[in-house]
Amino acid sequence: MGKKIAVINGPNLNLLGTREPEIYGSVSLEQIVKQLEKLASSHGYSIVHHQSNSEGELVDAIQKAGLECAGILINAGAYTHTSIALHDALRGVKKPAIEVHLSNVYRRESFRHHSYISPVAEGIVAGFGPHSYDLALQALLQILESKPKKG
Amino acid sequence: MGKKIAVINGPNLNLLGTREPEIYGSVSLEQIVKQLEKLASSHGYSIVHHQSNSEGELVDAIQKAGLECAGILINAGAYTHTSIALHDALRGVKKPAIEVHLSNVYRRESFRHHSYISPVAEGIVAGFGPHSYDLALQALLQILESKPKKG
Amino acid sequence: MGKKIAVINGPNLNLLGTREPEIYGSVSLEQIVKQLEKLASSHGYSIVHHQSNSEGELVDAIQKAGLECAGILINAGAYTHTSIALHDALRGVKKPAIEVHLSNVYRRESFRHHSYISPVAEGIVAGFGPHSYDLALQALLQILESKPKKG
Amino acid sequence: MGKKIAVINGPNLNLLGTREPEIYGSVSLEQIVKQLEKLASSHGYSIVHHQSNSEGELVDAIQKAGLECAGILINAGAYTHTSIALHDALRGVKKPAIEVHLSNVYRRESFRHHSYISPVAEGIVAGFGPHSYDLALQALLQILESKPKKG
Amino acid sequence: MGKKIAVINGPNLNLLGTREPEIYGSVSLEQIVKQLEKLASSHGYSIVHHQSNSEGELVDAIQKAGLECAGILINAGAYTHTSIALHDALRGVKKPAIEVHLSNVYRRESFRHHSYISPVAEGIVAGFGPHSYDLALQALLQILESKPKKG
Amino acid sequence: MGKKIAVINGPNLNLLGTREPEIYGSVSLEQIVKQLEKLASSHGYSIVHHQSNSEGELVDAIQKAGLECAGILINAGAYTHTSIALHDALRGVKKPAIEVHLSNVYRRESFRHHSYISPVAEGIVAGFGPHSYDLALQALLQILESKPKKG
Amino acid sequence: MGKKIAVINGPNLNLLGTREPEIYGSVSLEQIVKQLEKLASSHGYSIVHHQSNSEGELVDAIQKAGLECAGILINAGAYTHTSIALHDALRGVKKPAIEVHLSNVYRRESFRHHSYISPVAEGIVAGFGPHSYDLALQALLQILESKPKKG
Amino acid sequence: MGKKIAVINGPNLNLLGTREPEIYGSVSLEQIVKQLEKLASSHGYSIVHHQSNSEGELVDAIQKAGLECAGILINAGAYTHTSIALHDALRGVKKPAIEVHLSNVYRRESFRHHSYISPVAEGIVAGFGPHSYDLALQALLQILESKPKKG
Amino acid sequence: MGKKIAVINGPNLNLLGTREPEIYGSVSLEQIVKQLEKLASSHGYSIVHHQSNSEGELVDAIQKAGLECAGILINAGAYTHTSIALHDALRGVKKPAIEVHLSNVYRRESFRHHSYISPVAEGIVAGFGPHSYDLALQALLQILESKPKKG
Amino acid sequence: MGKKIAVINGPNLNLLGTREPEIYGSVSLEQIVKQLEKLASSHGYSIVHHQSNSEGELVDAIQKAGLECAGILINAGAYTHTSIALHDALRGVKKPAIEVHLSNVYRRESFRHHSYISPVAEGIVAGFGPHSYDLALQALLQILESKPKKG
Amino acid sequence: MGKKIAVINGPNLNLLGTREPEIYGSVSLEQIVKQLEKLASSHGYSIVHHQSNSEGELVDAIQKAGLECAGILINAGAYTHTSIALHDALRGVKKPAIEVHLSNVYRRESFRHHSYISPVAEGIVAGFGPHSYDLALQALLQILESKPKKG
Amino acid sequence: MGKKIAVINGPNLNLLGTREPEIYGSVSLEQIVKQLEKLASSHGYSIVHHQSNSEGELVDAIQKAGLECAGILINAGAYTHTSIALHDALRGVKKPAIEVHLSNVYRRESFRHHSYISPVAEGIVAGFGPHSYDLALQALLQILESKPKKG
Repeated sequence: MGKKIAVINGPNLNLLGTREPEIYGSVSLEQIVKQLEKLASSHGYSIVHHQSNSEGELVDAIQKAGLECAGILINAGAYTHTSIALHDALRGVKKPAIEVHLSNVYRRESFRHHSYISPVAEGIVAGFGPHSYDLALQALLQILESKPKKG
Repeated sequence: MGKKIAVINGPNLNLLGTREPEIYGSVSLEQIVKQLEKLASSHGYSIVHHQSNSEGELVDAIQKAGLECAGILINAGAYTHTSIALHDALRGVKKPAIEVHLSNVYRRESFRHHSYISPVAEGIVAGFGPHSYDLALQALLQILESKPKKG
Repeated sequence: MGKKIAVINGPNLNLLGTREPEIYGSVSLEQIVKQLEKLASSHGYSIVHHQSNSEGELVDAIQKAGLECAGILINAGAYTHTSIALHDALRGVKKPAIEVHLSNVYRRESFRHHSYISPVAEGIVAGFGPHSYDLALQALLQILESKPKKG
Repeated sequence: MGKKIAVINGPNLNLLGTREPEIYGSVSLEQIVKQLEKLASSHGYSIVHHQSNSEGELVDAIQKAGLECAGILINAGAYTHTSIALHDALRGVKKPAIEVHLSNVYRRESFRHHSYISPVAEGIVAGFGPHSYDLALQALLQILESKPKKG
Repeated sequence: MGKKIAVINGPNLNLLGTREPEIYGSVSLEQIVKQLEKLASSHGYSIVHHQSNSEGELVDAIQKAGLECAGILINAGAYTHTSIALHDALRGVKKPAIEVHLSNVYRRESFRHHSYISPVAEGIVAGFGPHSYDLALQALLQILESKPKKG
Repeated sequence: MGKKIAVINGPNLNLLGTREPEIYGSVSLEQIVKQLEKLASSHGYSIVHHQSNSEGELVDAIQKAGLECAGILINAGAYTHTSIALHDALRGVKKPAIEVHLSNVYRRESFRHHSYISPVAEGIVAGFGPHSYDLALQALLQILESKPKKG
Repeated sequence: MGKKIAVINGPNLNLLGTREPEIYGSVSLEQIVKQLEKLASSHGYSIVHHQSNSEGELVDAIQKAGLECAGILINAGAYTHTSIALHDALRGVKKPAIEVHLSNVYRRESFRHHSYISPVAEGIVAGFGPHSYDLALQALLQILESKPKKG
Repeated sequence: MGKKIAVINGPNLNLLGTREPEIYGSVSLEQIVKQLEKLASSHGYSIVHHQSNSEGELVDAIQKAGLECAGILINAGAYTHTSIALHDALRGVKKPAIEVHLSNVYRRESFRHHSYISPVAEGIVAGFGPHSYDLALQALLQILESKPKKG
Repeated sequence: MGKKIAVINGPNLNLLGTREPEIYGSVSLEQIVKQLEKLASSHGYSIVHHQSNSEGELVDAIQKAGLECAGILINAGAYTHTSIALHDALRGVKKPAIEVHLSNVYRRESFRHHSYISPVAEGIVAGFGPHSYDLALQALLQILESKPKKG
Repeated sequence: MGKKIAVINGPNLNLLGTREPEIYGSVSLEQIVKQLEKLASSHGYSIVHHQSNSEGELVDAIQKAGLECAGILINAGAYTHTSIALHDALRGVKKPAIEVHLSNVYRRESFRHHSYISPVAEGIVAGFGPHSYDLALQALLQILESKPKKG
Repeated sequence: MGKKIAVINGPNLNLLGTREPEIYGSVSLEQIVKQLEKLASSHGYSIVHHQSNSEGELVDAIQKAGLECAGILINAGAYTHTSIALHDALRGVKKPAIEVHLSNVYRRESFRHHSYISPVAEGIVAGFGPHSYDLALQALLQILESKPKKG
Repeated sequence: MGKKIAVINGPNLNLLGTREPEIYGSVSLEQIVKQLEKLASSHGYSIVHHQSNSEGELVDAIQKAGLECAGILINAGAYTHTSIALHDALRGVKKPAIEVHLSNVYRRESFRHHSYISPVAEGIVAGFGPHSYDLALQALLQILESKPKKG
């Protein structure tokens, strides 16, 4: 049983790739996770994926990741902008977390410009579609493979 | 198996009619739904009703309605004012949605004056107690029975 | 001489249906009023219609409606967002008033999101085009035909 | 033909005393003006009274007062809080103006706390019901009877 | 021992008339009080005057006035804009209070546009120099001599 | 009967040139219009001038110009900063409109810095006294004489 | 079956005492509840404890407490600052509620300074670590044991 | 000569219990202090009480408490919301301080929602009437009797 | 050697006409300047043109114009909205300056609605493409050819 | 009896040097004043020092300085940020005043960034510990010894 | 001569790695560029690097990149938060741009939370130190190697 | 070659003394620097002076000063209020910096009240004309000659 990385996805991301492919592309969340698993395993990590539309289940997932995983990729979807509970959960977890967004949220409505995740994340990757996840995992792996960082 | 209309009710609406009848009236959510079913069936529609106190379950209900129903009546209760997740779910759904409120929310505290539902709804009916639902259903039926609208 | 309901329309609504039918539809204000008269008369009411581009004349119309009519439908157009004078006139009138809008104003510029009418209206119907008026009249009739309400 | 003082009243003040006497008292605007005429004539002035629900007519009345009258009492009602046009009209007039309010506007909704009249008035009398007008007239007479003031 | 009216003056008003007469006029606070005493005594009242530069002493003076006096004239000077303590003291006192200002504060810096006194005063007289006090006393006397008012 | 250009002037502009010539110059609105007529006629246009102190009449004038005129010069005076009704009227009109101001409004009080006219005008000319109108008419003529513009 | 008091704890409080004892102390939520049970039972009450990371389940818990319990202690954690749904649930419940916080939230980030719980709570105890709960329970018991209060 | 605890009360609290008992209860500040003395002495502490309507005297009292007392209970009344001077005095004092309020200040006007005391207090007890002081003293005693805290 | 007029253009205006002609038109900055030279020379003035992407060089250019030129046309581009340095430079220069914009900046993003240039300019011409410069030069010439103005 | 300079110190500055010397240094207010006296006397001035924790006494001190002294050094401590009364007192005084701060207030909490003293001071010296006073006195002496300045 | 990618670095980034290596690490900008060149050349691209402390030179560099390069990596440093000129330059350039930051700017002062670059960038990579550049280049290469994107 | 002090002056300060001597005095920047050199040399320091209208060159100058000088006097002129780049440059420099202003910026427009320099300066001297520089140099020398300070 090896080291794990948590990939946590928030509300409405379950529909990725199965609806409106002309907008969001035809890549599903499952395909993204599969792609991440390939990269992770080449570094000796496995992926633990959790998607939920519920803020509370996402808090649970972060708490669980804090116990089991070496690091976290999180795309909190709409909760990014409203959830202090996720902020607190990530802060309680002493593991590096990377904030991911498919779209460039700063190009959208002003209520999407504030993130409660950013102040408790190592860094942010946003705007590159499914590729955002790949880059974020690379970033996380580099952090995990270098000397430990202060959370 | 005929056409369906989703009726989605948010937090604390489960208590309608069973408590404080002197304030909210003695009509229960069940009675409202029954009344809606009567009107809907006369137009060849059935009602799929979902009430939840959980934001995540309401996202689920909207996603499900997007797949199964022709349109949505939604009274998101307190989540009206705080939930970008519901906003995103409704936006993802390519079906007309009507925002309903029992009370005239613009007469209450200022934190109830902003709605994340309004920008993704066809229209709004607020302030007429249980009758708000009837009027909203009429509005939805008229939209469904006229030529298709751009969401 | 029977009971009356006032229908009051604000600035620029006089052009409805006669210009840009591709946008606002081909229904004129006169046709809307005719439709309302049909529904009203079936309940024993007649319609008193007043449209004006002038805030002062709309104040006059509300004051007159307060003396002569059982209730008011009001689409104050642009004055919705700027007129404390209309707010005061409606507050002085001890008759139920319903706020109507053709469009979903909450989908438009932010300066259209605040209404001085809402806090002095029983309820709001917005976003259903000419049908908004029909629904609002139904709401008003139901209020008038049930037990009297505190303004 | 003697000296004149303009008394200008804004929207909804025409109903004073004829409706809701339990709230606003049973004194009508006519009675207030009569009372003012008595005091004015004892100082050799006559009163020119103008009430209108229309912002534009109030601008006209101020312009006329600027040509004909020695000073102005103005209760602009709801336009107090929204009308830059009245502000400009009063500024253009080189005659002293006194702002009057029946109620203490600073005890009411926050949108009544700002006045466009105050910066172009000599002073303010507010909160004393019909008596506010008497006090304001005394203030104006004292200004007119002392050495001329810079507007 | 007859009925009393409190006249309470705040910071820097002690210098009135003794310095910069070209700006504030040559009338001293003592002369103003003398003038008030004349009017008051003609109505059977005496004046209790208190001026202080200290917020705490002004609170004391209001509390004392609440026990001994029938009503209060207050010009809180700069504390008008900053003192919740004076607001609370006036609210605790069940006697009518009138807010007085020598200048039209709404023509000055924006930090003078908010008053913590206004919401707990019967009414406001501002902008007429020493005459403001006379008018305010008239207003208070009229209130005291008519039927008792709710504070 | 040739082509027309509407010149629409708002509140208090009727007094131009007849009062305070030391400030606003001795040029009257009539002289400005005469000057505009000369330039317009040399391009084959006549001028339709309308001044009003009433917001509602200005809405009427814009609607009429929309039917009869090729373009609009508008100096909405104080309504520039408060009138959504004028904004809507100009938006409804599919003719080019130019915003004109005698003074540089951005040098004056902050409440004059926002314009509801600007977002629905082709362009703005402000600060050059009566000459502003001449420049604005030149701008309008150039637009009318070049290829048609999207409103 | 005796009288009950509900103790409701929000997101991330489940980890109390089991992680980062150097920061939050080594007292677990279970130990806090045990301590509360001791005090409650000495007054004839039992404790019903519910912790959840889900806003919806907390709404459920409050609704249930409204039916079964005499009063409520609530530490809503991060939802304190964002949840109108909890506000509404507590308002619907006609039982006294006390707001509890382990830390002094007013010393932390500004987004923790606003509470949706405070306006619907009897009072607040914050900043004393686990001892906050004991003090809050004492406060609640005193309220329950004195004459009934209006909620 | 034993250990002391300072109890510091701000403006208008001197009237507690002697006026408007139907609102604030019939308990006087003296009775509250007596009750506190009883609890304190059972822990070996005496109470030093200071009430003042003057911000400056309250600064003095805090400075004195810093020299003589082991801890501070402070109800700064209206100065809670406006006094940076009290904030600075408490910060300068290296003794634990507890903020007390009789009422739930967060249920009152918005200008009472900000506290300059909270950021320099250990914790807050608000909303329980005179009982707030008892609970706050318990909190302080527990702090004093446990290991020393960083201010 | 005759009189000079400075034409100063800010960042990104160097690309005018050479890129995206379908948007900004095919007129280059050079062509605009040539056109201005023709008009200027007919009034006895020559044009000194300076374009720079650097705020500092634009300050230099304004200072130089202050020494050598009779007046200034300035299109500060993006620095319009952010540069107090340009504001100060123009204020230091005792020569009339006209603010020019190709587009109607008030129709664009809200961060383009504030101008640091406007308060130190004689007037503004915006929204007429290259023609804006011609109109602005006419305005400047008229100012230069009439009696001298206070800057 | 020679010329005097007032040195006025506000709340909590009395403790300077006697407590927390590791933070504020070991220099007491008395030592600072002594140092100032040395410099002042070499220019023919004596120092009148007043420290108070009371806003009202500081107003008194400024008024007294206005009568007796040639200029003022003022460190109003926390009242810097809240006292309009001190602002008014300094404005009433026709003597030059210098604002002094021990610390760089702009590096501290945002509520310390606004000063009511600055707009009525000649200049500001902040951030140099006790040395700030020496520099401010030099600045004041230079002003007093050059030609008189308008306050 | 092959395809180019521009790497543009703003103010103070020239000091990277040569000062305070304990904070920013010991990697210099030159080393970062070298690393980028390696990755770029493996995809057939060369790197054009430009660092400047001057906003104007950065505008020049973006304009040049628009002509010569296939895409842009930009770390605008402090200008990120203040420069509309850079925003406009990037918008004018029809090439994909990626925003890069060494640190997680959302964890720093609030004035660093707004970016004028984000709305005109494809995406953002922030918080991973020098590695941010590598990830951003990967993102850019993936965009360049997939089908062309609308800017 | 001795120790150096940098004097850095921002935009428009190059014109000091050569224009509008009635306002800014007849002292030129060169004379100020000469005066500073005299004082500096008496303490064994030489002055390195740099004035620029360009933000980027000022960043360069600060970076250079960080390498060569013992401390910095900076009057950033208009960039004081807008430049995060200067803020960052000063923060990167581990040498004490003093903020200088000729005028009392807090008496001017509100956009001059915020300084990006203050949070990274040791202290501030403002409002004393050229004398501000002398005082600031004294402050800097005192810092340099006492024990080293943490930047």
